[in-house]
Amino acid sequence: MANHKLWGGRFEAALESWVEEFGASISFDYQLAPYDLKGSLAHVQMLGAQGIIEPEEAAAIRAGLEKLLERYQAGAIAFDVTNEDIHMNMEALLTEEIGPVAGKLHTARSRNDQVATDMHLYLKDQLGQIGEKLLHLREVLLALAEEHVETIMPGYTHLQHAQPISFAHHLLAYYQMFSRDSERYAFNLKHTDLSPLGAAALAGTTFPIDREQTASLMGFSGLYHNSLDAVSDRDFILEFLSNSSMLMMHLSRLCEELINWCSYEYGFVSLSDTFSTGSSIMPQKKNPDMAELIRGKTGRVYGHLFSLLTVMKSLPLAYNKDLQEDKEGMFDTVETIQKSLDIMAGMLSSMTVHKDKMLQSTEKDFSNATELADYLAKKGLPFREAHEIVGRLVLECSRSGSYLQDLPFARYQEVSPLIEEDIYQVLQSQTAVRKRNSLGGTGFEQIRQELARAKKDLNSQ
Amino acid sequence: MANHKLWGGRFEAALESWVEEFGASISFDYQLAPYDLKGSLAHVQMLGAQGIIEPEEAAAIRAGLEKLLERYQAGAIAFDVTNEDIHMNMEALLTEEIGPVAGKLHTARSRNDQVATDMHLYLKDQLGQIGEKLLHLREVLLALAEEHVETIMPGYTHLQHAQPISFAHHLLAYYQMFSRDSERYAFNLKHTDLSPLGAAALAGTTFPIDREQTASLMGFSGLYHNSLDAVSDRDFILEFLSNSSMLMMHLSRLCEELINWCSYEYGFVSLSDTFSTGSSIMPQKKNPDMAELIRGKTGRVYGHLFSLLTVMKSLPLAYNKDLQEDKEGMFDTVETIQKSLDIMAGMLSSMTVHKDKMLQSTEKDFSNATELADYLAKKGLPFREAHEIVGRLVLECSRSGSYLQDLPFARYQEVSPLIEEDIYQVLQSQTAVRKRNSLGGTGFEQIRQELARAKKDLNSQ
Amino acid sequence: MANHKLWGGRFEAALESWVEEFGASISFDYQLAPYDLKGSLAHVQMLGAQGIIEPEEAAAIRAGLEKLLERYQAGAIAFDVTNEDIHMNMEALLTEEIGPVAGKLHTARSRNDQVATDMHLYLKDQLGQIGEKLLHLREVLLALAEEHVETIMPGYTHLQHAQPISFAHHLLAYYQMFSRDSERYAFNLKHTDLSPLGAAALAGTTFPIDREQTASLMGFSGLYHNSLDAVSDRDFILEFLSNSSMLMMHLSRLCEELINWCSYEYGFVSLSDTFSTGSSIMPQKKNPDMAELIRGKTGRVYGHLFSLLTVMKSLPLAYNKDLQEDKEGMFDTVETIQKSLDIMAGMLSSMTVHKDKMLQSTEKDFSNATELADYLAKKGLPFREAHEIVGRLVLECSRSGSYLQDLPFARYQEVSPLIEEDIYQVLQSQTAVRKRNSLGGTGFEQIRQELARAKKDLNSQ
Amino acid sequence: MANHKLWGGRFEAALESWVEEFGASISFDYQLAPYDLKGSLAHVQMLGAQGIIEPEEAAAIRAGLEKLLERYQAGAIAFDVTNEDIHMNMEALLTEEIGPVAGKLHTARSRNDQVATDMHLYLKDQLGQIGEKLLHLREVLLALAEEHVETIMPGYTHLQHAQPISFAHHLLAYYQMFSRDSERYAFNLKHTDLSPLGAAALAGTTFPIDREQTASLMGFSGLYHNSLDAVSDRDFILEFLSNSSMLMMHLSRLCEELINWCSYEYGFVSLSDTFSTGSSIMPQKKNPDMAELIRGKTGRVYGHLFSLLTVMKSLPLAYNKDLQEDKEGMFDTVETIQKSLDIMAGMLSSMTVHKDKMLQSTEKDFSNATELADYLAKKGLPFREAHEIVGRLVLECSRSGSYLQDLPFARYQEVSPLIEEDIYQVLQSQTAVRKRNSLGGTGFEQIRQELARAKKDLNSQ
Repeated sequence: MANHKLWGGRFEAALESWVEEFGASISFDYQLAPYDLKGSLAHVQMLGAQGIIEPEEAAAIRAGLEKLLERYQAGAIAFDVTNEDIHMNMEALLTEEIGPVAGKLHTARSRNDQVATDMHLYLKDQLGQIGEKLLHLREVLLALAEEHVETIMPGYTHLQHAQPISFAHHLLAYYQMFSRDSERYAFNLKHTDLSPLGAAALAGTTFPIDREQTASLMGFSGLYHNSLDAVSDRDFILEFLSNSSMLMMHLSRLCEELINWCSYEYGFVSLSDTFSTGSSIMPQKKNPDMAELIRGKTGRVYGHLFSLLTVMKSLPLAYNKDLQEDKEGMFDTVETIQKSLDIMAGMLSSMTVHKDKMLQSTEKDFSNATELADYLAKKGLPFREAHEIVGRLVLECSRSGSYLQDLPFARYQEVSPLIEEDIYQVLQSQTAVRKRNSLGGTGFEQIRQELARAKKDLNSQ
Repeated sequence: MANHKLWGGRFEAALESWVEEFGASISFDYQLAPYDLKGSLAHVQMLGAQGIIEPEEAAAIRAGLEKLLERYQAGAIAFDVTNEDIHMNMEALLTEEIGPVAGKLHTARSRNDQVATDMHLYLKDQLGQIGEKLLHLREVLLALAEEHVETIMPGYTHLQHAQPISFAHHLLAYYQMFSRDSERYAFNLKHTDLSPLGAAALAGTTFPIDREQTASLMGFSGLYHNSLDAVSDRDFILEFLSNSSMLMMHLSRLCEELINWCSYEYGFVSLSDTFSTGSSIMPQKKNPDMAELIRGKTGRVYGHLFSLLTVMKSLPLAYNKDLQEDKEGMFDTVETIQKSLDIMAGMLSSMTVHKDKMLQSTEKDFSNATELADYLAKKGLPFREAHEIVGRLVLECSRSGSYLQDLPFARYQEVSPLIEEDIYQVLQSQTAVRKRNSLGGTGFEQIRQELARAKKDLNSQ
Repeated sequence: MANHKLWGGRFEAALESWVEEFGASISFDYQLAPYDLKGSLAHVQMLGAQGIIEPEEAAAIRAGLEKLLERYQAGAIAFDVTNEDIHMNMEALLTEEIGPVAGKLHTARSRNDQVATDMHLYLKDQLGQIGEKLLHLREVLLALAEEHVETIMPGYTHLQHAQPISFAHHLLAYYQMFSRDSERYAFNLKHTDLSPLGAAALAGTTFPIDREQTASLMGFSGLYHNSLDAVSDRDFILEFLSNSSMLMMHLSRLCEELINWCSYEYGFVSLSDTFSTGSSIMPQKKNPDMAELIRGKTGRVYGHLFSLLTVMKSLPLAYNKDLQEDKEGMFDTVETIQKSLDIMAGMLSSMTVHKDKMLQSTEKDFSNATELADYLAKKGLPFREAHEIVGRLVLECSRSGSYLQDLPFARYQEVSPLIEEDIYQVLQSQTAVRKRNSLGGTGFEQIRQELARAKKDLNSQ
Repeated sequence: MANHKLWGGRFEAALESWVEEFGASISFDYQLAPYDLKGSLAHVQMLGAQGIIEPEEAAAIRAGLEKLLERYQAGAIAFDVTNEDIHMNMEALLTEEIGPVAGKLHTARSRNDQVATDMHLYLKDQLGQIGEKLLHLREVLLALAEEHVETIMPGYTHLQHAQPISFAHHLLAYYQMFSRDSERYAFNLKHTDLSPLGAAALAGTTFPIDREQTASLMGFSGLYHNSLDAVSDRDFILEFLSNSSMLMMHLSRLCEELINWCSYEYGFVSLSDTFSTGSSIMPQKKNPDMAELIRGKTGRVYGHLFSLLTVMKSLPLAYNKDLQEDKEGMFDTVETIQKSLDIMAGMLSSMTVHKDKMLQSTEKDFSNATELADYLAKKGLPFREAHEIVGRLVLECSRSGSYLQDLPFARYQEVSPLIEEDIYQVLQSQTAVRKRNSLGGTGFEQIRQELARAKKDLNSQ
């Protein structure tokens, strides 16, 4: 029997089914169905308006496409792997609906510009949804920070207690990261919100098409100005994968901290049962599985980025079949980050913060050593000398199992006549945090200002 | 309503379904079903033999598991996302079959060692299948090489014609690459063919289990000697992904060459219609889609490797939920390389080689320049001087649109009195190839020896 | 002997030199010297203005720093590995210059905010230079395109001849890619042009510093609003590495094409001798080494991106020593892309284009098949039928070794009564290109419009 | 002035110096100098023995090469970037030493096989050194484990206390990982210990060379059997980078744990001052910088792996200049892992283990919950029911701030009549560890057996 592939006239032998299946993309690009229909609707309207096909042909095709859209939304479409991809599946379905006039839809169009169009429509749509989820996560962080302006915890460098900070300050650091993520996705739109339709196979077409009309019908803000570029560009997806890698990196940092914080050793927070799971063998276990899983999924998104960078490397113009590999990683990344954002927002909203445990942890440590050094420096000692003196005191204390706040005043007077009785207040965590009031610092006043700034910023988005 | 998760006693609130779905792995780890059953069968037999459970309990469980295996093979099992993973699905199914005694199967076992066992069984199985497909591809290369010992083509460096070579020689270079791939997968077995079963959650168990018995029942050659390592090691998968990345890299090189060779400019081969596709817009197109797709899929496998390396980085012992991310990349890599190997074997077996086009291409070029330089060097000229002289002659020819074989003898005599009439035979491609008879060189005799060696090697596998 | 490290008071044993060397960064971060001095100059001016140190102290330090800057510019500074990093080297040098008052410079500052400041200053500077080099490359592409509006070459998909296009059109596709690269680097500035100075170790400081003053003195447009974020954020470098990966990817595509085009089989261009090299053994070789090297260097930049993504994954706040690994990859990427851009611009400017070879290559192929199909479609045949008919004609021709333009008119009339005598003109490459005049298409008129648009765009930058 | 490049005869214009510098590799491949000389010595001996050059020529070249080797070892050789790479530098230096006869050394050899030979010699050498350093690290782990067989610590899953284990058991898990690393590097030798020399440019040579002789003179165990493969294969480096990525991954896991263990919250170990550093601002800090740095350097090695995988993707045969990018990543990886292994061995040898803190941490937690569940299961309760009961008891205790060992016996009797007075002994950490005596488990007896096995294994290497 004849080969009825739509591109089959030149061919003598049929594809074997296992080979066909290897080349087919319908098992994943079916997700593009509504976008493919949207693009076709715009295309046929333009073909009619430009007189490239007859008005009644345009009307028939349009009716057929709308019927397919309804069937799709009703879940009443079954795709077929022998029709290779979403475009050919749709054309076959349209032909079933309206007969051979369906063949006119592909006038002045190629699957090369069609798939690019579908991808742009899809990603534009997803960027909108991701933007909202990111906004929500930032709101959650702000709300939590507002509750914890005066919650004191150890600030860490090298995972060692460094200086006491406000828990709100720690949360706001993540707010900043996610704000940059939002900005990057917003920029991502610039190269996504463009129509490739009309680039045809690679070189444009001899038909009198109106690309501005189709772009506008599909809701695009602009269009590609070079047809070769239009069909071979995947920068917009690479930007997306790169932005998503950074987002996942930020989430992985927060997850790592949550996992630490809910450990036996820290005990700073308890995750709600909803976001924890148990063990099939150890009855006491309450595991931060969701945080671990998000952290683990970072690898998946990094992998998708590297995968597409590899695909694109050294690829000559214009379309090559290698480009079919652009889809699965993008779809999976969309799903991964949307769910990760939801889970993170839920996990933060529902966790219990153990303020006392956090505070205590700053009262039996040396995280007030900088206070003493700064105290001396303010009284005129070069900072380097002050640093040296305090270093020696810390060593002395740690040998005797005490802390700076435990040293008798007499010992301080021996160390330096610059030290007065107010030193004990200076050494308190509360004071240490309050007084670190430089712009962007952890001082309570600064945090309140930052909260106000952030809320104003969020409300304007 | 109560939480009926198998780990639920300690929990006050139920997981929400969208959170549960995020944590569940049944949508992909269902592929482990037969391996999970195999492991359980071994485990229960050992529990009975060791008297850890009663003989009749062991018998009941065993009967239930065998029933499940039958149902699985008949495609009569439906998995349920509320049961999180393959292990809990299986336990729930077993409980349906045989009642609460099913609960005894999990004695002295944890999902941590269970999933590791499943993965080892799975990958061991796949390594066998991949080994056979690789063997087949190597046979195809040998068969093709045998046909083309005396087929002459340009040998390239920098994609420039360098020296004429035998097409068989080119094919045998790929044979060598794929042979190394085979060796790597064979080594991969060393760390795959080990039983983690009995490591329990992380620390072994207080039950008097017999790990050697279960290992042997499952057909493993050895077992893990440290329980923490047993549940947290994923080296065997990383080795697999790394070996597969190298394999895909080799395939991508061959694909790149096939794509070049079947281009208008080269015309060295024609792929069969079965392994080509057309264009929806350009009726003349016959595209090497399969070769492009394999080349593109290189990115996918690289991505999976990087993904798992990222997951594993900095992970504390022992099991962490991040490890759940080890599966999808492995499954997808198994599928990708198995299909790529099949397609490549089919593509090579069915392609048409245009010998004349290959040969012609060496007769109107300068790929015989080394012959002239070697000729002079053999007559005593330092190689560097010979190289310089020939370089100048090539420039002279290329300005006049001629080749070395076209220069009149008088000109050669001017250039060097060392040159005699036999130079014209020396400059022929056929001579050039035949005489490059050093060990491993392109000389026909060498190739025949290599073919013999390779066949002997293959037959011994 | 005592440990004289600037952080030594608390320590009992000295570092061993081999360990010290492992931790030291001076072997590469010496490149930050001028930026480190710039930051210190701003910091000391602010310390003086705010009365944190005495005016004469500020003056002394400033004079010392300026002296160091002079010495640095004169190449008269030797760095010392025992001083670990650029900051400690500078402090030691300053102490040599002006004595212990140098110790006051570190008041209200930490190496954590200092190194972040240096990196922001450095990258901001480099982004400027890269922007100019990209602009130059885009100008070179435009100039070349202007010369070749009517140079006809085969347009490729799947590396098969698809439709004839203008060489200018092909070049302008790369112009588009590099324009997007420019836009990405411009966006990169947003998160680079920010001052972290004043974040101190992690939490801000109790000294009454003026961060806006130092930011302004260093020429930054803004500052970090969270001190934890300020010292632990490396997004600006990740953006840079990601943008550079995309740039290298574009360059690798162009290199691949140049390597193809200057091959024996294509013969479309000759690279100038300046950008080619020879072989030590094959006298005739003229290798496109520079294009291959840029293509190869794509791997290096991808590697740097993945390296830093790996480093950042799961890193708890705030500063961790892992972050020291952010520098070498950034420095190497800066050097790689700057040189690659220069080489590419030089290579394109100096290459010879063989127009005749390009044109000929479109006259003995089937790249005019779409013309015939469109011709039939315009006369009313559904495109799918037209496609099928032309496919069969191509097969017929290729069996007889002829082309569509060679078929006698009688044969065309048999095929379809819609075909008239004008078909022979339609089938010419020149016509095919000219008539593909849709927006962004390869038609000459379109290209001239695009050139005008691009020039206007470039001039406004 | 003429171009005096050794490949210059065919060229009309000289390379410009900035272009030349871009293409040159001498700035890093100078490290291959001793290997290049070794290869040349073997080559010239063979050329003489085979009569390809005169005996006195061979002797003169050999004497010159030996002179160069002496000069190199004395640090008395300066390399020159205008001589592009190590091979041309060496040839120029040799020519200076012995005059034009030096030109005969390059007979029957190309830089393509020469550089491959150098790389194989270099890596083979390094693999030996790495093997020894790995062995040393494994010895350090064994020695530490021997001291800590009965040191009890919490075993973790999900970073939650799971079950008490022996510290030695934890260390031995890393011993297993590093043992697999050793095995992988040993396998790596198989494809490294092969001579490519004699493959010449790509196709072998017409000279009567003896490749077995040169291979044997250089100490190789085998040789490449296909000349195209010999010059274009980089599998041996990819294997090395892949093995090193896994090694770094293992080190990163251990580093992460060390960083946790020496934190305020854990306090399980103190690193010696030699392997710690301080802060320029916080006098109390003692940071685990070395562990963080090794963890960070994981990214660097992963990056090098992906860099070379990217370079190799789709590269046609045989040599392409892209391959020059194989060196820097390999050199840097060699240095990184050698130093990381040394630092890790030193860090572990010199750290102080706080046994009491570790033990205490298992006495105020629920890590004995499995003991209770297993206790019930052994008395006949299906494990699932036992698990459920214990889960509820844990919840009850955690609400009242007590632990399982604190519950009065009366309460246990209410819970289940199966529980007897011996439960309190069962719940002790010491008992829990001792009794987990399954093969490979944490029981003291098991650990002692494993230590014996491991020592025997090490001694046989």
